[in-house]
Amino acid sequence: MKQDLDALMQQYNVDVLWVTGPSAGNPAMVYFTGEGFLTAAELIKRRGQPPVLLHRPMERDEAARSGLALLNADRYPYRELIQEAGGDLLRYQVLRFQKFLADLDIHSGRVALYGRIDAGQALSVFNALRQAVPGLEFVPEGINTLLSQAMLTKDPAEVERIRRMGKITTTVVSKTADFLTAQHTRDGLLVDRRGEPVTIGQVKQRINLWLAELGAENPKGTVFASGYDSAVPHNTGTDPAPLRLGETIVFDIFPCEGGGGYFYDFTRTWCLGYAPDEALALYEDVRSVFRKLLSELKVQAPCKPYQQRTCELFEQLGHPTVRSSPKTEDGYVHAISHGLGLQVHEAPWFGENATEADVLAPGVVFTVEPGLYYPGRKLGVRLEDTLWMNADGQAEVLADYPYDLVLPVRSRTRKTRLQADGGAAAAPQTR
Amino acid sequence: MKQDLDALMQQYNVDVLWVTGPSAGNPAMVYFTGEGFLTAAELIKRRGQPPVLLHRPMERDEAARSGLALLNADRYPYRELIQEAGGDLLRYQVLRFQKFLADLDIHSGRVALYGRIDAGQALSVFNALRQAVPGLEFVPEGINTLLSQAMLTKDPAEVERIRRMGKITTTVVSKTADFLTAQHTRDGLLVDRRGEPVTIGQVKQRINLWLAELGAENPKGTVFASGYDSAVPHNTGTDPAPLRLGETIVFDIFPCEGGGGYFYDFTRTWCLGYAPDEALALYEDVRSVFRKLLSELKVQAPCKPYQQRTCELFEQLGHPTVRSSPKTEDGYVHAISHGLGLQVHEAPWFGENATEADVLAPGVVFTVEPGLYYPGRKLGVRLEDTLWMNADGQAEVLADYPYDLVLPVRSRTRKTRLQADGGAAAAPQTR
Repeated sequence: MKQDLDALMQQYNVDVLWVTGPSAGNPAMVYFTGEGFLTAAELIKRRGQPPVLLHRPMERDEAARSGLALLNADRYPYRELIQEAGGDLLRYQVLRFQKFLADLDIHSGRVALYGRIDAGQALSVFNALRQAVPGLEFVPEGINTLLSQAMLTKDPAEVERIRRMGKITTTVVSKTADFLTAQHTRDGLLVDRRGEPVTIGQVKQRINLWLAELGAENPKGTVFASGYDSAVPHNTGTDPAPLRLGETIVFDIFPCEGGGGYFYDFTRTWCLGYAPDEALALYEDVRSVFRKLLSELKVQAPCKPYQQRTCELFEQLGHPTVRSSPKTEDGYVHAISHGLGLQVHEAPWFGENATEADVLAPGVVFTVEPGLYYPGRKLGVRLEDTLWMNADGQAEVLADYPYDLVLPVRSRTRKTRLQADGGAAAAPQTR
Repeated sequence: MKQDLDALMQQYNVDVLWVTGPSAGNPAMVYFTGEGFLTAAELIKRRGQPPVLLHRPMERDEAARSGLALLNADRYPYRELIQEAGGDLLRYQVLRFQKFLADLDIHSGRVALYGRIDAGQALSVFNALRQAVPGLEFVPEGINTLLSQAMLTKDPAEVERIRRMGKITTTVVSKTADFLTAQHTRDGLLVDRRGEPVTIGQVKQRINLWLAELGAENPKGTVFASGYDSAVPHNTGTDPAPLRLGETIVFDIFPCEGGGGYFYDFTRTWCLGYAPDEALALYEDVRSVFRKLLSELKVQAPCKPYQQRTCELFEQLGHPTVRSSPKTEDGYVHAISHGLGLQVHEAPWFGENATEADVLAPGVVFTVEPGLYYPGRKLGVRLEDTLWMNADGQAEVLADYPYDLVLPVRSRTRKTRLQADGGAAAAPQTR
């Protein structure tokens, strides 16, 4: 949690935490600044001291929304500094940072640097700054950083925001199911009342609309993938593709708060009208592994063994996995979980690259998402919920939603099919 | 344009162009990959050769949407490489890049690096890579880069996409005006039919909804700022604030294509019901400078003098400017224009930091946005259109929309006010 930052800075022997960049698409900055829109900013936190935000003059009100101590960049006038820099823009940027650090009484120390900016610019500016201020040392950063360790555990206010996003997400999933089941069918396709096929693109357009109605954003897109597409985990689906009855549809939705903020992550797999036997068999395997894993979640447990356990469970059911066959595209092919917060994917990590820092500490918010994929058979199944390891050490699903595989289609169509097929269709289904 | 890349690489003596990071929120990656969703990727273009995209195994279909030559990251198995790296994650990342470069037959050369990733990670990984492959040299990058020079000019397909976003943007602006003028008034406030004040937050919620209906996204927020807020250029507005008649409302909207893509940028200033004399006077000054500047746009002209010219014009009208008083918060306080494309702000630049590379070349898409701001008087006025310097050397506004300052409010309410005020209100206004 944010309140652990000073202790973590002590532990990692870091004197200065520095976040650079805009607020949009920059979770490290948003973690500190909250709701204001900043097109360019620098946030500095010295160990044991509150953060200071350097902002553009015309973003002074947006910066003030953060509640942080502010420094107006008009203290570093371009005209004077570019002259001092002999007209060299890179040297100007370094000079500006030198003066900024000096104003904060920072002349040396170990700096942990964060914030999404252009990689080439980061390399140029911060290497040049290190040369200009020899006492500065930038701490080497891997995947698990001091900041990701702080962000790993969420405080109650953060959990409530994620829970609220869970409510919005499942509301949109429910609206999507209602929309699909309200359509008609013809020749094995889902069609609208004019008889035109309903496409993946149309469904996604509605999903974005419902998210907007509920005040959410969808910056990373949505997986709404059917048939072959559902059998490749991150295939987002083919917009012009029609929806065929009986195909597996993997619906993985991961929106965030409006204005940028906390995410939710959620997956269900659906078959429209009926589930072919082999789809049902895969679904039952995924569902049983999902249940088993949920029952085995333990507070403070290291994360990596859950991936091993998932592989073991799927292998027992006869499926290839990334453990038995690292390059497999069939069977279980990804990690079982990831942390979630201001980023849709963040620590803790559960895959091969998980470290000892990745544990189910109280306050961790994470997904559980077993899946099975068979591209050659055009079959994919994934189920995913987002959970919170709460203060009582219980893993709590943050938004409940049914796991049903089959979405019934309208009986009018079924009747038509009964007539056409001479009554050979399945038993009537009710919603 | 993208087709100029090889010539630019020659000109800048660059052997390898490298873009790193995900696709979301990463314009440099989207410039090459287009519509696919990639959570992590590397794009390498050697001079004179087509780009190659390194992608995650489970994102092979998304990567394929790019139409680029692909390299599946399963060639670099984690298990083997982390062992070779002695368990060190940073060394693993460097090893992986070394093998990737070797597979592309890149062993030395000058590399221009782009793509938004965490600054600390960029510093760690690419500095370590440079040490591991001594023949690699990362080209120092300032504000004007080789890639920004390519992106500076748009090809006809890009212009059509921006024009389409202009149509969407002005449609939403029109819907916003219709919504506001359809409301009622009470005690100088805009109210709904129940008599409840209409708030900035409600208007913004509708704007997001209309954008979603038209398939657009709004990742950077919207400026819908009234009264004092309108007098600070990047103040986005106060959600709970009611809309008061006669206040200046700066409405600056800059959405992008759904799924991430090309932006549009557009501003109008409105007064509901009536414009006080001092608001009208500012509006007329901004409008006249706007007209004057549009008439002075010349193909191949350097950009920086337009900022000087704008200051000159506003100073002639008696306003302080950033030229006459660099730290001023009153008068004309920002740059007159910026380029626009996959980023809402990109080259060419027009402000103090503009260089000789910033010119109105054919194919440049840019804004013109004069404004005047007086926070102490709670007055702000800005007008902005997005233009394209077309192949004939004419600057063409990409989406037309009226410039009217006053949005009339419903007469029913005015009558109520006439009765209450004993008929002292302004002359009747019609829509």
